[in-house]
Amino acid sequence: MATAAEAAAMRQAITLAARALGATSPNPVVGCVILDTAGTVVGEGYHQRAGGPHAEVHALRAAAGRARGGTAVVTLEPCNHTGRTGPCVEALFDAGIARVVYAVSDPTPTATGGADTLRALGVDVEQGLLEDEARAGNIAWLSAAKSGRPYVTWKYAATLDGRIAAADRSSRWITSPESRADVHRLRAESDAVVVGSGTQRADDPHLAVRGIEGAVQPLRVVVDTEAGSVTPGARVLDGAAETLVVVAEDLDVDLLVETGAGEHWMLPRAKGGRGIDIPSLLAALHARGVRSVLLEGGPTLAGAFTAAGAVDRVVGYLAPVLLGAGPAALGEAGIGTIADALRLDITETVRIGPDLRITAVPAVPAVPAVPAVPSVPAVPSSPKER
Amino acid sequence: MATAAEAAAMRQAITLAARALGATSPNPVVGCVILDTAGTVVGEGYHQRAGGPHAEVHALRAAAGRARGGTAVVTLEPCNHTGRTGPCVEALFDAGIARVVYAVSDPTPTATGGADTLRALGVDVEQGLLEDEARAGNIAWLSAAKSGRPYVTWKYAATLDGRIAAADRSSRWITSPESRADVHRLRAESDAVVVGSGTQRADDPHLAVRGIEGAVQPLRVVVDTEAGSVTPGARVLDGAAETLVVVAEDLDVDLLVETGAGEHWMLPRAKGGRGIDIPSLLAALHARGVRSVLLEGGPTLAGAFTAAGAVDRVVGYLAPVLLGAGPAALGEAGIGTIADALRLDITETVRIGPDLRITAVPAVPAVPAVPAVPSVPAVPSSPKER
Ligand SMILES: NC(=O)c1ccc[n+]([C@@H]2O[C@H](COP(=O)([O-])OP(=O)(O)OC[C@H]3O[C@@H](n4cnc5c(N)ncnc54)[C@H](OP(=O)(O)O)[C@@H]3O)[C@@H](O)[C@H]2O)c1
Ligand SMILES: NC(=O)c1ccc[n+]([C@@H]2O[C@H](COP(=O)([O-])OP(=O)(O)OC[C@H]3O[C@@H](n4cnc5c(N)ncnc54)[C@H](OP(=O)(O)O)[C@@H]3O)[C@@H](O)[C@H]2O)c1
Repeated sequence: MATAAEAAAMRQAITLAARALGATSPNPVVGCVILDTAGTVVGEGYHQRAGGPHAEVHALRAAAGRARGGTAVVTLEPCNHTGRTGPCVEALFDAGIARVVYAVSDPTPTATGGADTLRALGVDVEQGLLEDEARAGNIAWLSAAKSGRPYVTWKYAATLDGRIAAADRSSRWITSPESRADVHRLRAESDAVVVGSGTQRADDPHLAVRGIEGAVQPLRVVVDTEAGSVTPGARVLDGAAETLVVVAEDLDVDLLVETGAGEHWMLPRAKGGRGIDIPSLLAALHARGVRSVLLEGGPTLAGAFTAAGAVDRVVGYLAPVLLGAGPAALGEAGIGTIADALRLDITETVRIGPDLRITAVPAVPAVPAVPAVPSVPAVPSSPKER
Repeated sequence: MATAAEAAAMRQAITLAARALGATSPNPVVGCVILDTAGTVVGEGYHQRAGGPHAEVHALRAAAGRARGGTAVVTLEPCNHTGRTGPCVEALFDAGIARVVYAVSDPTPTATGGADTLRALGVDVEQGLLEDEARAGNIAWLSAAKSGRPYVTWKYAATLDGRIAAADRSSRWITSPESRADVHRLRAESDAVVVGSGTQRADDPHLAVRGIEGAVQPLRVVVDTEAGSVTPGARVLDGAAETLVVVAEDLDVDLLVETGAGEHWMLPRAKGGRGIDIPSLLAALHARGVRSVLLEGGPTLAGAFTAAGAVDRVVGYLAPVLLGAGPAALGEAGIGTIADALRLDITETVRIGPDLRITAVPAVPAVPAVPAVPSVPAVPSSPKER
């Protein structure tokens, strides 16, 4: 049984972990708090960046000698494998940690087994403290570990009557400055931000994070099948963040070089549909280390993601505005009748300035909680950092 | 200065008044609590039905002799005119009430002046206690008193992406049983429920209140310009509530009689537009004693009400469902560009089962709080009950 001090420490570890959302991929976010034999906090740490020290190592350093005989409270099962540093289980054992309390088991084949190793070394191990909260804090990484594709959050901003623009396509601004600032937070927590060629053409969006100190910039991705929308001088081509333009694999490479529009990926076209094949796109992003995607639209691409079963979370900013005409927030998603509707559960509603932010997840998750055989085509995997 | 006992009594009076929402038109809802000289509650009452005793009379009866020297706490200024019973100011005076605390002044020409009369009789009078709350509880009647048209609540049920049906028009059920039950509460609080011929044709709706004991049934109104949608056997023609079918004034009366479709009103067509003229419809409903209208759609008629500046409150039931296709919640409202959008303020968001109910009011009220010259064409007025 975990103690009250351990529960408080776990809460703190979850908070610490969240600080690095968007900065650790392909690694998870992890927080760790060290308690001494009296249950006093003597060290705290979190995994700040892929390639940097793990949460446990940060926390042990902070605790220095005071960790001996104490307890390590950590959001994820300590790793068992040698990456750039030795495995965390060794570091914990070497520091004289007598007990390890962790929330969520590590599902990845390379890093798993930490708990067993610790037990074999005589350390007291307990799993499951605040597991749901810790899981929620690491949802993108956990989901991606199971599915082999990034966790996708579809974000939209619409009027109460579901419009993203007026009849004449004017839309600046439907939602408030507060909502737009909140979107920058979402971007900062994501590894990649994705838009379609329609949005690229209509809005010339920037897609980088502004106004959040220390934020790691997401990869900017424009899905531009015919290489027609990202033209020299486009705002996504500035130096604020990396940018990928995704085009059809059958395009003329010489033509691409001529456009001068940044780094290109050539991917298969959607089978029987329009645009780029969504599973291929997601598999390629995963291979590049992307674990969380913020899909910023527009409605056509969001419809294609929905049809592909590739929306894991919906974040809608609803402005208290009525238009009565204009394009809808979500385009064709292959749903013809009410029985086939995508049913969600609302997980949160918050007022953001004058607007309402609604967060919802599919009632039947796009990625089942129980590991399934990955349905995503195999792609060369990036070196596992953690 | 009002005492704490008086504030508590006013809160109770507001609660009492709300019990009769939908049952008192063309009168307001009014609640009254009598306190004796020690500040103890000795009588409570509310105006239950047009033609029945006023709140003050109910409360004085309950207080019997114990009202003498006491205080009457009432949500609306006591009336000054003789209707079916004598004016309330006299009843209060005759019962020996020494002090009257009321929240909202009576804006109607016939009933106003109660406070002055009471003062002239030597009664201590105070106005304004919990005025905002009392005003909100009586908003439909107060708004109608100023504008000469009923207060209109537009209710819709839509998906998160703003659709009221799927691509094939199937819509049973987008929202939950909890939301549908809540709509019956809205109906019970309204004097009339209005739909267009499109909804009549598509849904054959019933529009009466079900499942709320003691509810006064609203008037059911179908706006059916060409007398083509309400056919014999329609559910609105059952005996559950009164039903009005509104048709164009230039229609052939013999034809109407043939259809056998209940009571008809013949009203002007919209100037230069489609269907019935909305101001004429609202003026006619007002003349019939209707003070609150629940507009239940569909999108076309709601668009026409919006364009006419005749939406005072929006109640949206948002189901956590995505469709990506299908008709939008609000149709053409004469808004072509974002600068002309109807901007609202969200006043409440509540979870209703799995759904979200959002209530909002125009940021610039359709009916200004300050009395304006009525813009509604003069129509014969129903006898004022209160
Ligand atoms: N309010 C908001 O939240 C929000 C957010 C974003 C955009 N918007 C608005 O949305 C409008 C643009 O909408 P949109 O729907 O035209 O743009 P979009 O969804 O950004 O782009 C659609 C285009 O993406 C390309 N594409 C690539 N792969 C695809 C696939 N698998 N499925 C479907 N399309 C694919 C297609 O063109 P190609 O195949 O030719 O490349 C398609 O026409 C703009 O007015 C913008 O302001 C609003
Ligand atoms: N989810 C919801 O909240 C909800 C609520 C209601 C309806 N619905 C759905 O909405 C659909 C029907 O929508 P709808 O838009 O066709 O129906 P509607 O708005 O109920 O009716 C429109 C019709 O009303 C008549 N009308 C009369 N005066 C008018 C005026 N001033 N302006 C405009 N129209 C006027 C017009 O026909 P005439 O002139 O020929 O009479 C017009 O075609 C159905 O599928 C129904 O299920 C959904």
